[in-house]
Amino acid sequence: VSGEFDLINWIRAASSSADCVELGIGDDLAVLRWPAGDLLLVGVDQVLDGVHFDSAVHGPREIGRKVMNRNLSDCAAMGCLPVAAVATVALPHHTGADYGRQLYLGLRDAGDIYHVAIVGGDTASWPGKLAMTVSILGRAGGVRPITRGGAKVGDGIYVTGPLGGSLLGRHMTFEPRVNLGRQLAASGKVSAMIDISDGLSRDLAHICRESKVGAVITAAMVPIHPDAEQMSRRPGDARTPLEHALHDGEDHELLFTAATAPGLGEIRIGSIVADPGVWMESENRREALQPLGWEHRL
Amino acid sequence: VSGEFDLINWIRAASSSADCVELGIGDDLAVLRWPAGDLLLVGVDQVLDGVHFDSAVHGPREIGRKVMNRNLSDCAAMGCLPVAAVATVALPHHTGADYGRQLYLGLRDAGDIYHVAIVGGDTASWPGKLAMTVSILGRAGGVRPITRGGAKVGDGIYVTGPLGGSLLGRHMTFEPRVNLGRQLAASGKVSAMIDISDGLSRDLAHICRESKVGAVITAAMVPIHPDAEQMSRRPGDARTPLEHALHDGEDHELLFTAATAPGLGEIRIGSIVADPGVWMESENRREALQPLGWEHRL
Repeated sequence: VSGEFDLINWIRAASSSADCVELGIGDDLAVLRWPAGDLLLVGVDQVLDGVHFDSAVHGPREIGRKVMNRNLSDCAAMGCLPVAAVATVALPHHTGADYGRQLYLGLRDAGDIYHVAIVGGDTASWPGKLAMTVSILGRAGGVRPITRGGAKVGDGIYVTGPLGGSLLGRHMTFEPRVNLGRQLAASGKVSAMIDISDGLSRDLAHICRESKVGAVITAAMVPIHPDAEQMSRRPGDARTPLEHALHDGEDHELLFTAATAPGLGEIRIGSIVADPGVWMESENRREALQPLGWEHRL
Repeated sequence: VSGEFDLINWIRAASSSADCVELGIGDDLAVLRWPAGDLLLVGVDQVLDGVHFDSAVHGPREIGRKVMNRNLSDCAAMGCLPVAAVATVALPHHTGADYGRQLYLGLRDAGDIYHVAIVGGDTASWPGKLAMTVSILGRAGGVRPITRGGAKVGDGIYVTGPLGGSLLGRHMTFEPRVNLGRQLAASGKVSAMIDISDGLSRDLAHICRESKVGAVITAAMVPIHPDAEQMSRRPGDARTPLEHALHDGEDHELLFTAATAPGLGEIRIGSIVADPGVWMESENRREALQPLGWEHRL
């Protein structure tokens, strides 16, 4: 058996530095130098055993990668540059320090790609299931952050890749669209953006509500991932491939609106309209698209 | 039954604003304006059911207060000004939105005292026990942050209040020493500081290790809280009141070193020495003080 402080010391020795970090892991708080005049973006996401992963199936390094990538995907959705992160882990009793080290290495796998410095955290052992969080700090770096609230009537609606069926595996292995989100924001053409975590139908509703507009998507234009086809063929699955593409969560592609296409490989799926609500057109019928995507029931 | 987004909307409507917040709760990330040239301090702490609180005994508002106060105590230990926070909550299934609202109000109770803006978070429902985190952002605000690493041979060792027995209730209700920590840092006299969360013996060892020094404390000078006396009298309790004061965690008083006393009500308990290790003198005997305070076993 080893302890919390052995693990912290190991992480500290393994941690990389970054220019902006004046004091990293090992004190009450980390100390960063923030570039003058640069906006600070901050958020947090958690992953929980039995909800966002299954510890009986997924290894600790995968789990660590996922929680960091969920946060990097938030950075992508704002078009910001990720800078630093702090993490917590609640380890079930008797999990062992090696498991904790693997979780950390997963964080590093994902964060290192974008030079994210892990500057602090909190490790505890408890009688519960594995729970992990990452809080991410990003900076605007000369590009205005893109919110959910800027969609205008007449804008096109776009996604950055095919959707649906992430539960077959992509929900653990998706690549956050950090560089693409940055390019989209820097193009000056994007009016509103979000990453698809709760499902297209629900995340588009978030944009509409924040922008006080409506949306019409064309069923035939929604790009369907092969995983959505595969899920739909499984015995007992009641959704069509299109329904998987519309409602499954954790695709982590970007969903955005723009008056003119940025020309960065995006796929147009519809248009912003004045009527509130989210609508889908198929074979000349227009019907309300219910947000069937993910919502935690309390 | 209500859902995650109802709760988020309620929190959003209830949230207060702050000058530095350009975009608060409700987007992928919050956006803050950071004062030019001001250092950014960041950290995170969690509270877990069965470890840091007992949900069968403690109410949600108390639990929310505790997790915010743990983070504010970290700000106190660095002498910084708390600015903003993001939070996560993992709610057991069927807990209900009202419980979630009470957790949030607890965060606000504690944060509002220091004008901490809660700018984001992540709420989920899961098949596990209640887990909550807060990540805090603070700023130096013209005062150099105090680390654990600055203690010098010959410095006095001080605490800001009586210790021990916090488990009788103070571990839920302590007041973080934010203003006092700030005054201590601004005095220019404090060489190293930490808040006592793991217990005096262990937290003093943290200072010694980071400062590459040793410490000698005088048993008769350690201020003992009445709760330590009371715990010691309980049937089956094997620790003396002094042992409770030395080793119990979650006092959240400040422990610091200084060449000359700042004169802010601090209590001297010993001196920094060159010999590595932590020692205690009592009745002309000097013996090694084992760090028996809290450590999570993995």
